Formats: sequence, C-alpha cells, structure tokens
Amino acid sequence: MSSARQVVQAILAGRGFREKGPAAVYAPANIALVKYWGKRDEALNLPVTGSLSISLGPLGSHVELARGAGGADAVWLNGQPLPADGSFAKRARAYLDLFRPAPDFFFDVKARNTVPTAAGFASSASGFAALAKAVDGLFGWGLAPRELSILARLGSGSAARSLEDGFVEWRAGTAADGMDSFAERLDATWPELRVGAVVLCADEKPVGSREGMKRSVETCEFYREWPGRVAKDLAALKAAIARKDFAALGGIAEANALAMHALMAATRPPIVYALPETVAALRKIWAAREAGLALWFTMDAGPNVKLLFEAQDEARVREVFPGVEVVAPFG
Amino acid sequence: MSSARQVVQAILAGRGFREKGPAAVYAPANIALVKYWGKRDEALNLPVTGSLSISLGPLGSHVELARGAGGADAVWLNGQPLPADGSFAKRARAYLDLFRPAPDFFFDVKARNTVPTAAGFASSASGFAALAKAVDGLFGWGLAPRELSILARLGSGSAARSLEDGFVEWRAGTAADGMDSFAERLDATWPELRVGAVVLCADEKPVGSREGMKRSVETCEFYREWPGRVAKDLAALKAAIARKDFAALGGIAEANALAMHALMAATRPPIVYALPETVAALRKIWAAREAGLALWFTMDAGPNVKLLFEAQDEARVREVFPGVEVVAPFG
Repeated sequence: MSSARQVVQAILAGRGFREKGPAAVYAPANIALVKYWGKRDEALNLPVTGSLSISLGPLGSHVELARGAGGADAVWLNGQPLPADGSFAKRARAYLDLFRPAPDFFFDVKARNTVPTAAGFASSASGFAALAKAVDGLFGWGLAPRELSILARLGSGSAARSLEDGFVEWRAGTAADGMDSFAERLDATWPELRVGAVVLCADEKPVGSREGMKRSVETCEFYREWPGRVAKDLAALKAAIARKDFAALGGIAEANALAMHALMAATRPPIVYALPETVAALRKIWAAREAGLALWFTMDAGPNVKLLFEAQDEARVREVFPGVEVVAPFG
Repeated sequence: MSSARQVVQAILAGRGFREKGPAAVYAPANIALVKYWGKRDEALNLPVTGSLSISLGPLGSHVELARGAGGADAVWLNGQPLPADGSFAKRARAYLDLFRPAPDFFFDVKARNTVPTAAGFASSASGFAALAKAVDGLFGWGLAPRELSILARLGSGSAARSLEDGFVEWRAGTAADGMDSFAERLDATWPELRVGAVVLCADEKPVGSREGMKRSVETCEFYREWPGRVAKDLAALKAAIARKDFAALGGIAEANALAMHALMAATRPPIVYALPETVAALRKIWAAREAGLALWFTMDAGPNVKLLFEAQDEARVREVFPGVEVVAPFG
C-alpha cells in the first residue's frame, strides 16, 4: 500500500522545489459517458474500472498559484477569500500539503470556476486538475500529462480526466501504487457534439460520491457485475466514437448512467439521487426521442441531467428544455 | 420440457371431468415483499427465484364458473360481458382450454374483482388463482392447495401465491416440470400489519411484466446477482416475520423493491416504471420516517407505491397520504 505522499515523491524523484514564479493555469470540467463508481484504493483514488469522459471546453477552473507571504495558506474562490475551516479550503490545503517544500512554505491559491456553480457540473475535477497543473507550473517541473493526471487523481478521482480536452479515457490500471492509473486523450474530434446542463437542484448531495461509492462496493451485490458492464460499455463507446455514431454514443451513455443509478438504488441502505423533476426530465427526453429528436442524457451522482445532442438539433432541444446551458466541447 | 397441458394431465391423472355443478370461489390479491422477477421457463411460469408475499384479505377476485349453454366461452367482468377478442377474455379462454373436457364444452365465467381496478394492485394473480379454484370446484376434484398453486401458476406466475391468506412463500423449485414450484402459507400472523395503496397512475404499463422480466434475464448483467440477493432477502424476511420485527420487514421489502427496479433500469433498453409522482411519494415516505414514523414501502412492476405500516400509525400515515386505500391482511 502506497500513500499519496509516496506517489508524489516517486513522480517528483530528482526534481527540486525551486519556485519559478506564480503559475496561472486552466483545466476543463468533464462529464463521464461511461461512469466511474467505486474505488479499489481509497487513499490513492484508484478506481475499480476505467471510465470515459468528455471535457467541457470553456467550463472549468482557472487557478493562480503563488508562494504566499502570510503564515498560512490563503484560498480565494471566485474572488472571495475562503474561511480556513471551510470544506473547500481544507481540501485544497490537504492537497497542497503533498507539495509543501517546508513547513513554513505557504501557498496563495486563487481559483475561479467558469463552471456555473449552480449548473450541476462538478467543479472538483477541474479544480484539482488545475491545482496539479499550477503546482507543476509554480515549481517548473514540466511533468508529462500522464504524471499530471496521476497527481490530479490524488485530489479527486475524476480530476484524472480533466487534464485534456475532448474525449478522455481513464484506465483503471492494476498497480498497487496506481502508476498505471491515469487518463489519456482519445484521438477523435466531434465538432457537432453538444452537452446541455439541465439544472434541477443545486443543493448539496445528501450522500457524497466518496461515501456512496464505498457503500456500493461494500454492500451492493450487483456491484460484482459492474466491472464487466463497464468494460463492455467502454469498448462499445470507443467504437461508436471511432465511427461517429451519435445514436450509439447516446444510447451507451444513457444506459450506463441508468445502470450506475441502479447500483446506487440497490446499495444498502439505498441511495436515490433522483428527484421528481429528474424523472420528469427523463420522460421529456424519451418523449422527444420517440418524436424523432436525437436526444440522449447522462447523469452524475446527483439529481441533475446532462443532455447529449448534436449542433443541428440545438433549437429543437431548447424548445424542450428552455433553460438548458449548452456547451460545445470541441469549441 | 413439459407443456402446461402435460402438467395439468399429470395433476389430474385418474380424475374425470364430471360436472359437480357451478362453483363460486374467491382468491385474494397479493403483494410481494420479496419480489418475483424472471422466469426459468416461460411456458410454465417457473421462476428463477423464490418470492414471499402478503395476501390482501378482502381485496381479490370472486369467480363463478359453470358449464355454458352457448357455443363459446362467455366471460363477464364486474357484471359486464367482455368482448371475445379482448385481452382479458382471450387469456381466460386460453387458460380454460387446459381444462376443457371436449371441444364442444364451453364455460361461463363471471369474475368480480374487489381489488379496485384503479388501485394499482394486480388482479391477474387473484383472477387466475380463483379460476384454478373454480375449475377444481366445477369438476369436484378436491385438489390439494399445492396442486391448486401449480395450476394457478400456469395462468400467471404470481397467481401461485394467491391461494392462501397471510404470508405466502413461493418456492422456485428445480424440477423441469415445475411440480416442486408452488406456494405455501407461512405459519405466522400479524394482525397489526397494514398495506396501503397509493395510486399515482392507473394507465396500462408501457412494458408488461412478462416482457420486462424476459428482457432483464436476457440483457441485464446485474441479473446474475439477483438470485443470491433474493435468497438473502428471503431468509432475512422470514426471520423478521418470525420475531415480528416490523422495521426489519419494512427495510427488507423496501430495499428488495428498489433492487428489482434497479434491475429494470439496468436492462437494455432500460425499463423505468417510476413517474415523477413515484419519486415524490418515496421522498415523502423517507421524510416521514426521518421524522419518526414507522413507514416503509414496496412497489411492483409499475409506478404505484404500496405502503407498509402497523395499525397504530394509520392516522399519521393518512396525514401523509390522505387518499391511501388501507388493507388489513389479517382481518
């Protein structure tokens, strides 16, 4: 069993901690089309299965990182200084501990999310990916993308997928130290692809992903079949991307998301993220599809729904979901 | 592979088809607490797993069966003659074919359901159980309860559980001809137990149980874990009934129903019976339970919700669900 600190040491072996001056970086948020649910190592955020996401281009996190002048780390989010005992500041500080050259070295972190906080896109993936890039920039290590992916993963599992644009596959890996568990960009573009955020509830989740995954792995009988299901869905999704088959992509993403929510519902005690509005949105999507619209969805561990469609259908999608926030992942 | 006809012949071996005069019988509806989802034999309605239900006392089906004077079977439901080509009349006729002494022997069937048609309780279980009893009465065979359970099963799987009052366990059995797949009453009473029907939608299901089960068995990876899950839930439920532990009974029933709906959602293509109103009802139940009310639920393959509670809480339950239809299974 490795610790996160040992992984950081292994990656930084031979590299020093000389500041190159402040770093300003950006990382995109991502939404998984084949989901990550369940860890094989809690400390290193090593997943049981691979996953495949689409990065959200301009929606993500900007981070400016510098050596601070004060006697403690200082963290700003969207221009506001955060109280040191808040959960976001604590999580950032715990992560920065992994890279602190000396006990009296403190960081100034200025984070700014372009992910609308209320849009139901997770900002922890882009946040930790940006933090990993920022630390690399501050100390001038010039780490390779896969090394950054591993470092980002130590902050939040899905952050491993937020280092690249486009379609990104996170390989589960098998090594105990997780050195083979990183994400890489697929060689594919899909300029017409659109992701739409339908925001139904911006409240905090009743059960966090970390806790929910742990419960599913430990108590859900169906979880034993999840790795096989994901392997099938990953293979099918990559084939669909390769041949640009949108109906196949949508169908795989939608069914995979429903299967993840099924795992949660069969967990003990059950975890149900859906709200009445969630089911209403799914039924609107199915009705629109019955009526000929090429519209699918995915859902993360929460009640909000993300639409998947192509550029030519945007007007029709907006008729069905007038408030939708639309992203063009390929610019 | 046996046919339904061979099973009937084996059970009736040596018995004749002399009419003893009209029969008037009754069978209760039932609601499963550990669910039946998936057949190992489509023709004989043999289940993959066992299941355990509670019979609904006065809610069920009355059937009067007599030799008809006409040149075809005649079927009445709730006082109305049914058109011969309707789905109910066709299903009844196909079932009666198994017991027709001669091609020119026709039946008059008068069925009356006390299951409110719009209450979301299935009437096919009580209907076929009553038909099996009525045929037995008409010909005066005096079949044993387990034989009647097998015959009822040939009409509709869950009808096997509608021959007895109280808690009823249907054993899956292993025999190819299903002679060991019948239901029996548990030796237990629970006078305080109440079942409440919350009717959210009385429309016909978009995917019938027969078709849905078949799809789950064929396409849902999670289905492989369903038999093990059911075995655990059955053992735990029987233990809870034996010690009259209502919180345990409720928890097992609720989680088992959610796990069945999870199977459906992970089926390809996904089957989702829930409506927005379903999720709203579940959340009301969970909120009431958080507030101290001993209220659980179960759900069949449809959008409606059945409440599980005890007599002393009926007033509080009616505050939460004013329109609920309450049944006392033990009278």
